[in-house]
Amino acid sequence: MDAELSTPVLDTPMLDRVKVPADMRGLDMGQLRQLADDVRAEMIHTVGQTGGHLGSGLGVVELTVALHYVFETPRDKVIWDVGHQAYPHKIITGRRDRIRTLRQPGGLSGFTKRSESEYDPFGAAHSSTSISAALGFAIANKIAGQPGKAIAVIGDGSMSAGMAYEAMNNAQAAGNRLVVILNDNDMSIAPPVGGLSAYLARLVSSRPFLELREMAKKLSRRLPAPLHSAAKKTDEFARGMVMGGTLFEELGFYYVGPIDGHNLEQLIPVLENVRDAAEGPCLIHVVTQKGKGYGPAEAAADKYHGVQKFNVITGEQVKAVAKAPAYQNVFGETLAKLADSDDKIVAITAAMPSGTGVDKFAKAHPTRTFDVGIAEQHAVTFAAGLAAQGMKPFCAIYSTFLQRAYDQVVHDVAIQNLPVRFAIDRAGLVGADGCTHAGTFDVTYLASLPNMVVMAAADEAELVHMTYTAACHDSGPIAFRYPRGNGVGVPLPETPQRLEIGKGRIVRGGSGKIAILSLGTRLAEALKAADTLEAKGLPTTVADLRFAKPLDEDLIRRLAATHEVVISIEEGSIGGLGAHILTLASDEGWTDAGLKIRTMRLPDVFQDHDAPDKQYDTAGLNAPHIVETVLKALRWNDMDEALLGAGDVRA
Amino acid sequence: MDAELSTPVLDTPMLDRVKVPADMRGLDMGQLRQLADDVRAEMIHTVGQTGGHLGSGLGVVELTVALHYVFETPRDKVIWDVGHQAYPHKIITGRRDRIRTLRQPGGLSGFTKRSESEYDPFGAAHSSTSISAALGFAIANKIAGQPGKAIAVIGDGSMSAGMAYEAMNNAQAAGNRLVVILNDNDMSIAPPVGGLSAYLARLVSSRPFLELREMAKKLSRRLPAPLHSAAKKTDEFARGMVMGGTLFEELGFYYVGPIDGHNLEQLIPVLENVRDAAEGPCLIHVVTQKGKGYGPAEAAADKYHGVQKFNVITGEQVKAVAKAPAYQNVFGETLAKLADSDDKIVAITAAMPSGTGVDKFAKAHPTRTFDVGIAEQHAVTFAAGLAAQGMKPFCAIYSTFLQRAYDQVVHDVAIQNLPVRFAIDRAGLVGADGCTHAGTFDVTYLASLPNMVVMAAADEAELVHMTYTAACHDSGPIAFRYPRGNGVGVPLPETPQRLEIGKGRIVRGGSGKIAILSLGTRLAEALKAADTLEAKGLPTTVADLRFAKPLDEDLIRRLAATHEVVISIEEGSIGGLGAHILTLASDEGWTDAGLKIRTMRLPDVFQDHDAPDKQYDTAGLNAPHIVETVLKALRWNDMDEALLGAGDVRA
Repeated sequence: MDAELSTPVLDTPMLDRVKVPADMRGLDMGQLRQLADDVRAEMIHTVGQTGGHLGSGLGVVELTVALHYVFETPRDKVIWDVGHQAYPHKIITGRRDRIRTLRQPGGLSGFTKRSESEYDPFGAAHSSTSISAALGFAIANKIAGQPGKAIAVIGDGSMSAGMAYEAMNNAQAAGNRLVVILNDNDMSIAPPVGGLSAYLARLVSSRPFLELREMAKKLSRRLPAPLHSAAKKTDEFARGMVMGGTLFEELGFYYVGPIDGHNLEQLIPVLENVRDAAEGPCLIHVVTQKGKGYGPAEAAADKYHGVQKFNVITGEQVKAVAKAPAYQNVFGETLAKLADSDDKIVAITAAMPSGTGVDKFAKAHPTRTFDVGIAEQHAVTFAAGLAAQGMKPFCAIYSTFLQRAYDQVVHDVAIQNLPVRFAIDRAGLVGADGCTHAGTFDVTYLASLPNMVVMAAADEAELVHMTYTAACHDSGPIAFRYPRGNGVGVPLPETPQRLEIGKGRIVRGGSGKIAILSLGTRLAEALKAADTLEAKGLPTTVADLRFAKPLDEDLIRRLAATHEVVISIEEGSIGGLGAHILTLASDEGWTDAGLKIRTMRLPDVFQDHDAPDKQYDTAGLNAPHIVETVLKALRWNDMDEALLGAGDVRA
Repeated sequence: MDAELSTPVLDTPMLDRVKVPADMRGLDMGQLRQLADDVRAEMIHTVGQTGGHLGSGLGVVELTVALHYVFETPRDKVIWDVGHQAYPHKIITGRRDRIRTLRQPGGLSGFTKRSESEYDPFGAAHSSTSISAALGFAIANKIAGQPGKAIAVIGDGSMSAGMAYEAMNNAQAAGNRLVVILNDNDMSIAPPVGGLSAYLARLVSSRPFLELREMAKKLSRRLPAPLHSAAKKTDEFARGMVMGGTLFEELGFYYVGPIDGHNLEQLIPVLENVRDAAEGPCLIHVVTQKGKGYGPAEAAADKYHGVQKFNVITGEQVKAVAKAPAYQNVFGETLAKLADSDDKIVAITAAMPSGTGVDKFAKAHPTRTFDVGIAEQHAVTFAAGLAAQGMKPFCAIYSTFLQRAYDQVVHDVAIQNLPVRFAIDRAGLVGADGCTHAGTFDVTYLASLPNMVVMAAADEAELVHMTYTAACHDSGPIAFRYPRGNGVGVPLPETPQRLEIGKGRIVRGGSGKIAILSLGTRLAEALKAADTLEAKGLPTTVADLRFAKPLDEDLIRRLAATHEVVISIEEGSIGGLGAHILTLASDEGWTDAGLKIRTMRLPDVFQDHDAPDKQYDTAGLNAPHIVETVLKALRWNDMDEALLGAGDVRA
């Protein structure tokens, strides 16, 4: 609450009058400017209390006001790419009263979400989906013969992803129902990379913002449809020289810009003209400043992309004191150290250098670090090419984003059995970012692939070993997953250990009544559960399987033969570790004579955002649930029912 | 053998001298032209006997000769995008003696394959991976400080995929080690779509092929590195007006072209210049004609993209007489009929209108058909947008290609619970196209997703019902899978039936000793197995589960309770139907008291190409294997061993 104490009292007279966009449509330019200022103040104040994404939202305050002023939302659909810049949008679309619940348990999502508001026509959180979705809305209106535009607002970073290009390539069919706002702040989360980014920088640096008069003149004689015939080629290039933006024009857009995205006097007439006069899909190139209007954010290298709660006056963020290093940094530093003595090691990130810890590697080995932009598909096949030529590429990609490259993992890596290393961060549930960022399917979708090795780290020391094991594993692809956040506080090994592929370890016990087979960081909960079970007179073995694939069949076979109840637990969906163990058990006929086996996994729902531990509680994957599962399994064997009635199961 | 009989005797004197590329490097231009003619003749002759991809290979005969003549293969890496145009490449890289085994059991792959030859540095089959892979090779050489170029050859159709754009956006880092050949034949499998295609057409139509002298002059003063500073903007646009290709130049390539891809006198000096003089990554725009040099192919609409065996003189293809309609056409025609009375139905294909049967729909409903190009990611999110605005989109995508859009299925469809319909063709093993095209993972990766409904059709009548059921299912996403090839010959229903979600059906029996739970077209094998089992005195129930998700838990529970052995069978990998059944069984503790349950699925390997029925035999999923699995399960219960020893198990 420190942050709140030092926050000035908010005075937002204009915002107080605007609950929904319709309330602003009669305002004059001065009032709209005031509204933007109020929204910005409200936003800084809110994020100071809640933490979350700040810089991106501050950059689009004026754009948000202008879009809702000019377009007939919610009939017209404004689709925010990624959605983390949509806090100002939430504030003026009926959600100001709940804005301080952002990313809090039970509160508003940190992204756009269909179930929250009719002003959120399409949920987002992964980048570069907005143009495809907007095209869907536009074409649906076209087919139905009904009015309504679709406006995709997409950042320059998101434009580096292939699917944005695929969508642009298909935009023509939407005609003037589609408007793309390219929000160019020269940033995604990290500084941008690649040819497109350089191109946009040239567009912006080569000419001043369009003069309003010049723009009005051009637009008032109605925008021409894109020119297609070869005869008009010369004209087209001449237009390119005046207007810039030929890349977009070649793909069939009418390009307008660049425009100052903080200047309502410029934004509003341009948007009005495009709304009323465009004959085909338009791309409006808007230049904004991430963190605009808040000094500490403007001054920071990451423009306060994602922040903790902070003091609004000073910008100082409330930093939790970490007891243990973050997994991502353990990975990045370990890999950097390994690369000191192995010049084949290369690290690849898709626009997430700090989130993945690749920044640590980059510092030591800049020429062997590749940030490919938001381009997971390319990242994986690029890594496959590197591996085919003898390098040891590590693709560090969040579990949820690796979904973007699934076909490349199957087709370019697994089928060819190339030794690409996948460092899969944010495995399992991830807290405030919610279900869109949860990494819950990777064991299922990777362990079903021939040739693939899949590991999960039980703690940060294990992550060191697994990073090293992956570096040593030259015979095919290998993946290792680990969660978001900090380690459990175990000491890091001085010398990393090469793990034997497909071999788990017994962490506790070895014989007894109950065997818990854990994969990943539920190990701590498994050990807690074992304490409880032993206190009840149930000797318990806990194994850390380490590998979902190949399974340690010998170990599992031995434990199944010598224990009465076998429980598997993992931070993933159905089809993963548990399914593989059950398949082994049935293949070998263990169940024929009776085997009390249970698989604990994430339930079949997309879970809302919450604190991670709370999420696992909701999911039923904490120690008390393990105990409960064991006792239930025993009860079915006429075990003393009193055990379940004792009321201490969830103690 | 008819085709062979009518084939003229091959006279290929120059090709007879060239076993590997080194053999051609001393030849003069006339000899190279002769070599190209010989390769073309050999290729036509070969595909006449084997069937396979013809048009694409005929289009790149000269390009293949020129590339291997100019570049130092195999040190330099030529990477053929998709790889189905690589037959000429195989012929001159040491594989002519096996070329007539193409796509035959145990023979050469129809695509490039690393294990086949050192001249195949990277396997392919899915489109648009070549530039990423080539970048990997180029960067590996750069890091290692060793010589070697990487040349990606990519078609204009493949350029519509996002990952090609992602790779181009990252090309700068490779410097002159990377060469991209844009093989523009104005075709992928179907005519091309979208803005990029229109752009390429303008480039080609607006100017004649570069004059050799003009080109030589430009190139001889060494190619300039891409111009970056704003000051050079005017120069850049001027260059664009002369050279065209600014879209590629904006992404950091030096653009050269267009070039006549059938003219060795033009191709070779350009390639030599680029090899020797380029200072950065080059894109050479080569115009070719699909089917070039073979009259029947040039005249055909699809340019003989993929053909059966044919008569070389007449071009007439050997058509197998189909006993039943192809699944894809049953789908397309059913959907077209449904759309007659439902104006919300929309069909989407990613460059596969005829392969998916969407062409049947397009004929009846052209304004509700969308071919988005090779752009599965966009296809799925576009469909999500359509669904969000009240349409009923059917995404018809092969199982293997849907992997390209996995994140979009998760993030844009499943999380938002939007009623997108996935018509998943080529599910299971697919025959001659081999493992790259097999659809083996979809049940695993889809049935693990919350909100998703997953069906599999047991025959073509079921496919009609499932198409209709999907059209009716408005509450969330639904997928239905069906195999490549023709139906089993059952009559098609006059009136499609709306299936109850999550309910299977008993096809045979209902009580007895053995219960077989089938998903998909293994049903016929299950019924055959039941005959054998009953003949052995083992009463057998066969159920068609229809749904992998939600499971028909009631039915499975009832059958498990009333039968001694339960067998599941599916045309998919581990983690699918069998895993879901086992999970149910262990969740409910059925195995505690003993349950003989076995799951039959595809083995943990990427299977080579072969006839589909043979592939299923290798995979162990035909009737005899079901019988064997049942008997083995019973033997473990001390069943009469004579059953197994009787020798009739695989009869």
